[in-house]
Amino acid sequence: MAKKVLIVYAHQSSRSFNAAAKNIAVEVLTAQGCTVEVSDLYAMGFKATATAEDIKGDLKDAENFSYLEESKLAWEQGRLSDDITKEQSKLTEADLVIFQFPMYWFSVPGILKGWFDRVLTNGFAFSQKKPYGLETFKDKKAMLSFTTGSPESMFCTIGINGDINVTLWPLQNGILHYCGFQVLPPEVFWAPALAAAKDRKKMLESWRTRLQDLLKEEPLSFTPLDWFDKETFQLKPEHISEEFGLSVGIHLSNPLPSQS
Amino acid sequence: MAKKVLIVYAHQSSRSFNAAAKNIAVEVLTAQGCTVEVSDLYAMGFKATATAEDIKGDLKDAENFSYLEESKLAWEQGRLSDDITKEQSKLTEADLVIFQFPMYWFSVPGILKGWFDRVLTNGFAFSQKKPYGLETFKDKKAMLSFTTGSPESMFCTIGINGDINVTLWPLQNGILHYCGFQVLPPEVFWAPALAAAKDRKKMLESWRTRLQDLLKEEPLSFTPLDWFDKETFQLKPEHISEEFGLSVGIHLSNPLPSQS
Repeated sequence: MAKKVLIVYAHQSSRSFNAAAKNIAVEVLTAQGCTVEVSDLYAMGFKATATAEDIKGDLKDAENFSYLEESKLAWEQGRLSDDITKEQSKLTEADLVIFQFPMYWFSVPGILKGWFDRVLTNGFAFSQKKPYGLETFKDKKAMLSFTTGSPESMFCTIGINGDINVTLWPLQNGILHYCGFQVLPPEVFWAPALAAAKDRKKMLESWRTRLQDLLKEEPLSFTPLDWFDKETFQLKPEHISEEFGLSVGIHLSNPLPSQS
Repeated sequence: MAKKVLIVYAHQSSRSFNAAAKNIAVEVLTAQGCTVEVSDLYAMGFKATATAEDIKGDLKDAENFSYLEESKLAWEQGRLSDDITKEQSKLTEADLVIFQFPMYWFSVPGILKGWFDRVLTNGFAFSQKKPYGLETFKDKKAMLSFTTGSPESMFCTIGINGDINVTLWPLQNGILHYCGFQVLPPEVFWAPALAAAKDRKKMLESWRTRLQDLLKEEPLSFTPLDWFDKETFQLKPEHISEEFGLSVGIHLSNPLPSQS
């Protein structure tokens, strides 16, 4: 069955390396028969701030405004702003979501952080009562595809930036896995701005090759949810010493594409 | 000598727990004779997206726009937009910067991410050639003060969210330490929304107490910069086995306030 793909893309320039990576994904996936939709955040002028304007109609408690609570209620009652609703519809349709961005400050650019903050609404994308356990997105895959400013050598265990897996943890575990996506290994374009033209080309060709079978890839593994106590959300005693235990090292050892 | 403090504050409501934490900081530090300035990002309608509009006058390469390069040049030539310049002036003046925010998606809210992306300009706040080594901010202290949605038990090594130090790594190491700030231990308000009124009060009182001597606190320790090779930015062989080595565990073992 033809798959639907959403690319959430955050670069200002249509001539950037990120644009090229996005265009290749559109091209290859479309050629495979996928329906590909792109949310071009800068071109859309996407609002990056979570404010009361995101909610139509009356607030439950305007004086002591809680975005978490008000947006949940608005989602339940169909009162979220149109731009949010539109992104949520795209997400609901999608079988695969690719986030394409330049890494800014060891994370996503503000405009993409705003997309996460506003579109992944409480109730729609996650449940506080069942952290990591809302099953709405369980058949969807999601992945990060990004450029770095620093070379790979700085992002290893003995590099000054530390292991890239640590930097990606809040994004891959804290957002994607928390929302119940199957998380595909990231596509990391190491410092294309520092690379020679031929090496930039190679990086894009390698991405093109990977895209051929992207939809067949195995997702990253995370500690099984039932290993955690349902009250405390801590690892059950019998699993603490297991291979998949939540020691930082093990939790971050999921293979990167270059190693798999 | 009287110190200057900048509080970069990101909550929508003046009646929130975050507002209360910010107000206490203003009150206690002012009473100590500090000059306290607050950047109230939502009230300012702070722009969270890094775009060409941040730059006055002609771009160097409008077609292949690079925010990193264009903003560096604009900073050198005094052509950054007024809102950025104003924040940079506050930062230049400050001896201590407190970032007060509710954690959104294991990081800062989009509006604060936008502040980092736009205000910490290439050249002004960091140098790509000397990562972590630009000394402009070396006499300044900076710290995160934030509320979480999850309780502390979920943010420990065996908790489902993993060690809070991992989640804070991109912010404390990747932004604050990278810019050369002395990083004070974070003030973590664990899930105040789930706490009883009296416990919320206790959290704020504990913050009030900490603020009395905040300016005398020792910053977190990071691996000394001269332990890294100046070309590769990897740990020199003679330091790999040392106590301060860049193994993830050790790098994240800086004491949290509750343990110090």
